[in-house]
Amino acid sequence: MKIRIGILGYGNLGRGIECAVKQNDDLELAAVFTRRKPDTVKILTEGVGVYSVSNVPEFKDKIDVMILCGGSATDLPEQTPEYVKYFNVIDSFDTHANIPKHFNAVDAAAKASGNVGIISVGWDPGMFSLNRLYANAILTDGEDYTFWGKGVSQGHSDAIRRIEGVKDARQYTVPVPSALDAVRNGENPALTTRDKHTRECYVVAEEGADLDIIENEIKTMPNYFADYDTTVHFISEEELQKNHSGIPHGGFVIRCGKTGKNGENKHIIEYSLKLDSNPEFTSSVLVAYARAAYRMSQEGQSGCKTVFDVAPAYLCRESGEELRRHLL
Amino acid sequence: MKIRIGILGYGNLGRGIECAVKQNDDLELAAVFTRRKPDTVKILTEGVGVYSVSNVPEFKDKIDVMILCGGSATDLPEQTPEYVKYFNVIDSFDTHANIPKHFNAVDAAAKASGNVGIISVGWDPGMFSLNRLYANAILTDGEDYTFWGKGVSQGHSDAIRRIEGVKDARQYTVPVPSALDAVRNGENPALTTRDKHTRECYVVAEEGADLDIIENEIKTMPNYFADYDTTVHFISEEELQKNHSGIPHGGFVIRCGKTGKNGENKHIIEYSLKLDSNPEFTSSVLVAYARAAYRMSQEGQSGCKTVFDVAPAYLCRESGEELRRHLL
Repeated sequence: MKIRIGILGYGNLGRGIECAVKQNDDLELAAVFTRRKPDTVKILTEGVGVYSVSNVPEFKDKIDVMILCGGSATDLPEQTPEYVKYFNVIDSFDTHANIPKHFNAVDAAAKASGNVGIISVGWDPGMFSLNRLYANAILTDGEDYTFWGKGVSQGHSDAIRRIEGVKDARQYTVPVPSALDAVRNGENPALTTRDKHTRECYVVAEEGADLDIIENEIKTMPNYFADYDTTVHFISEEELQKNHSGIPHGGFVIRCGKTGKNGENKHIIEYSLKLDSNPEFTSSVLVAYARAAYRMSQEGQSGCKTVFDVAPAYLCRESGEELRRHLL
Repeated sequence: MKIRIGILGYGNLGRGIECAVKQNDDLELAAVFTRRKPDTVKILTEGVGVYSVSNVPEFKDKIDVMILCGGSATDLPEQTPEYVKYFNVIDSFDTHANIPKHFNAVDAAAKASGNVGIISVGWDPGMFSLNRLYANAILTDGEDYTFWGKGVSQGHSDAIRRIEGVKDARQYTVPVPSALDAVRNGENPALTTRDKHTRECYVVAEEGADLDIIENEIKTMPNYFADYDTTVHFISEEELQKNHSGIPHGGFVIRCGKTGKNGENKHIIEYSLKLDSNPEFTSSVLVAYARAAYRMSQEGQSGCKTVFDVAPAYLCRESGEELRRHLL
């Protein structure tokens, strides 16, 4: 009996989930749900239906874990507490400041229904959070550093696209190599926002647009760019398609800490990701946690969980005995 | 009420545990046990007693978690199943091939006593194992690579010391930079033992010893050195003390995997450690898992566990709410 997975929302993340499910023999895709007209959505998996979100409740006994692929701003705060009434659910809620509120809403609904909801799964929050936690638990006297990139920031790319005269744009967040080196060398540097990352923008302008005005608007945009060293490159639509159509990302979580009688010994723990496709990697994490949600639910657990609450063994298909033999 | 920690065996690891306990406000050292004469053992913590191992059973209700600091060859296979009869226990059993057998022995004894025993805690096995597991759960189609070093191998140093004419020696295991780069570039190279690591030996010879014979004996020693590119440096006793008295170590766990419709996207997950003191870092991991053992025991769990079975949140002193707010 395979674990039956549902996908709610078929964008980059939904498509990534579909591919990740195929890589795991113990999982099967049961259905895809969309807010669009179902017959306009073509999926990769033959024989699996696409349904309107209004039909979700009918699948109560046909899906073991529903993976919610909506956005954190407006979709997930409503969807996760709603759908955990019917299924075990997984989301990738990533608005760090609102996690406590989201947790409480999902926890109440999940406990009432007896299902498991695992929130904020992915790589940050997600694998990066886990590595921050493990490193903090081990090196209690130390400093944390997180760097992101090199990678495409969807939010920053969107912000550039909203500027008048901009046809399309791609923004890369890039860690500053000298800052990364100082951290790795255990120098425990104090780093400002500007010290840690630069922002590289590739912009396609409308014909006749004033490039100086666009560049200035980008570089002075509060929150998004003003606090960073930002470079703007104007390129053609063809070049954007050819060289900047991927969605790579990644980053580094580093903790430097001291041990010993007088803190005389230094230790550096580093975790890094280099990802060709941000949504496909995130999907692969979500699918592993879907397996965990199913197993925890089968054991009678319920309520809201995060990656901090999931024992690692739940993520793998193999038995505890196999894991101890091959991976420990 | 602090968690009361016992230390059994007061060598490098036991001293590291003592220092690590001091870095954690919710833990306190209750007692140290030794096979030596207790009055010959001086510890760092004032007011804490040193006792003979024969007195261990008397501390049944005075210690919450006993950390076993013996060796994997002969000590732990006997000690861990024995002492889990009295306490929750943690060990750093690191003979990978014998873990399944050790697990079963500890599990039977721990279930009978109602205590928790967490085995094979440290960094390899331990944090490296965890990172292998997480990376395998996420990237199911991929390759694993583990590199060790640069660091001192106690076993290899001891092997050199047993050669006639050798007074003292220190052996460093060093990852080959080009192999590491190939893995990081996602080239999925097939690597032999010789391709991955070199061995650097610093040897103090007895006066009048034949250095060529010693060098040849080292380089041709089966299992330890014959399969590696080994370099031997003869140095003075003073130089060994001055430049090679530390016990640094570290290493890299890297997984490269593919996702997408046709495996078209590549991802690299890398975890690395750079440690000034191998025993002190190992101790810091052991102490975090001691906290976890106590909490799991308080919840009514029992039996043998490994790092794979411990939900990350158990390792930290902070509440789930605090962890979600600050680390997720």
